[in-house]
Amino acid sequence: MGKLARLSISLDSDLLRQFDDLIAKRNYANRSEAFRDLIRSELVEADWQAGTRKTAAVVTLVMDLHAQDLAQKLNEMQHQHVGQVVSSLHVHVDEHNCLEVLVLRGRASDIRTLGERLISVRGVKHGKLTLATTGERLT
Amino acid sequence: MGKLARLSISLDSDLLRQFDDLIAKRNYANRSEAFRDLIRSELVEADWQAGTRKTAAVVTLVMDLHAQDLAQKLNEMQHQHVGQVVSSLHVHVDEHNCLEVLVLRGRASDIRTLGERLISVRGVKHGKLTLATTGERLT
Amino acid sequence: MGKLARLSISLDSDLLRQFDDLIAKRNYANRSEAFRDLIRSELVEADWQAGTRKTAAVVTLVMDLHAQDLAQKLNEMQHQHVGQVVSSLHVHVDEHNCLEVLVLRGRASDIRTLGERLISVRGVKHGKLTLATTGERLT
Amino acid sequence: MGKLARLSISLDSDLLRQFDDLIAKRNYANRSEAFRDLIRSELVEADWQAGTRKTAAVVTLVMDLHAQDLAQKLNEMQHQHVGQVVSSLHVHVDEHNCLEVLVLRGRASDIRTLGERLISVRGVKHGKLTLATTGERLT
Repeated sequence: MGKLARLSISLDSDLLRQFDDLIAKRNYANRSEAFRDLIRSELVEADWQAGTRKTAAVVTLVMDLHAQDLAQKLNEMQHQHVGQVVSSLHVHVDEHNCLEVLVLRGRASDIRTLGERLISVRGVKHGKLTLATTGERLT
Repeated sequence: MGKLARLSISLDSDLLRQFDDLIAKRNYANRSEAFRDLIRSELVEADWQAGTRKTAAVVTLVMDLHAQDLAQKLNEMQHQHVGQVVSSLHVHVDEHNCLEVLVLRGRASDIRTLGERLISVRGVKHGKLTLATTGERLT
Repeated sequence: MGKLARLSISLDSDLLRQFDDLIAKRNYANRSEAFRDLIRSELVEADWQAGTRKTAAVVTLVMDLHAQDLAQKLNEMQHQHVGQVVSSLHVHVDEHNCLEVLVLRGRASDIRTLGERLISVRGVKHGKLTLATTGERLT
Repeated sequence: MGKLARLSISLDSDLLRQFDDLIAKRNYANRSEAFRDLIRSELVEADWQAGTRKTAAVVTLVMDLHAQDLAQKLNEMQHQHVGQVVSSLHVHVDEHNCLEVLVLRGRASDIRTLGERLISVRGVKHGKLTLATTGERLT
């Protein structure tokens, strides 16, 4: 963390009260932390719209355990993009279903494409691409 | 607008600089206005998650001008929910396409249902439900 | 509408039953219409990710009626981009609040920028940019 | 997988061509798989809107490695909800940043609340809650 800045915000007292209620419900320690989160979310979204910056993403895949060759196929795709797939976590949900989470890292547009391709594989019942960040520029 | 409050936020100076760049790009007059917008967006979203509050929504419908009975059918649906449809705007996009925007008002869950039903009518090529607000509690 | 195609989809009967329940709740006339809507939504989203295509958007603004010079300022901004603002609808929500809906048309990245700028004007309590379509390529 | 159903969809041939282009770009093996994915996404979203069903979610947290007591605090929160946190994955992004992914399981509204609370902890630079599914009803 670098140098600390302090800024002053003016707003209607009723709006502030509603905001305080909301962040209390979400368990924020204080307003500064809540504001920093709002700022950082906007910055992360702007990075993804730009598309060119190096960033991170999370792919969530819910799969049929018994889908033929699925694990093998997903594995091969990940190895073809070994520089972009950092790590993965596998959860056995029930007798039939697995949930797998992959952390991707790379150029925004590249890892978006890889995520979409993993989600489209046959046997993947449900997939989501979560646009995250490396945190590098976020202090 | 009620009584004005003033609050002080502490954050890393580099994070602040990035935020300043972003709001300059979006043409905000100052940081307070940008912060108020962030707060109000969070409050509007929380209202829609709760589902019970009175609020407003906008339905965007893109339609085939020549779709049989479409205008008539949409009209009838709106009249059946006359208390919830405030007003509408019609734009002739080209020889074949119209864009219609409806402003809905009522209980969040009710107008969500009405919006989904309008979007599902045959001949509506594309529809979107935008969750907005009456602005009543937002100062 | 051009030539009609017919395609055959295979899926688990239980998945189909759940889908039928969902589209019944949303009032779809038949499955074909529901499928066409799903397809068209994906296409519209892909257009917006690409950014370069000519398309349409809707801006929803909730405003304080008494915000000084707000109507004037919004008006001027719209006139500066007269080629992109097709039309607008104004609703008097209550004694203090107005809701205005603007239909924008132009290159995706341009009208996104204009939408963000309108939303950022001081006195606009809440704004949303809805990414729509001209319907031109959607049959 | 249960009994297989087959259904026939009618649509404009030009719309079908655009859809084929899109799914080719996303690497789908065939149209049936792409349609099943669209159906399942709608069902998962409807589950989350309902709020009461048992489901799964993924929380992505990007953190400052040096944030005081952060790991400890997140750990304690997870232990207080041990029945809802299934597993987690930790990635060392660079000298300063970690990315952690948690898989949550439980009633939709409960795990949404837990996810929001984890994201709000001080020192978490960026957090996202991804609404997923156990896959149980998705065949």
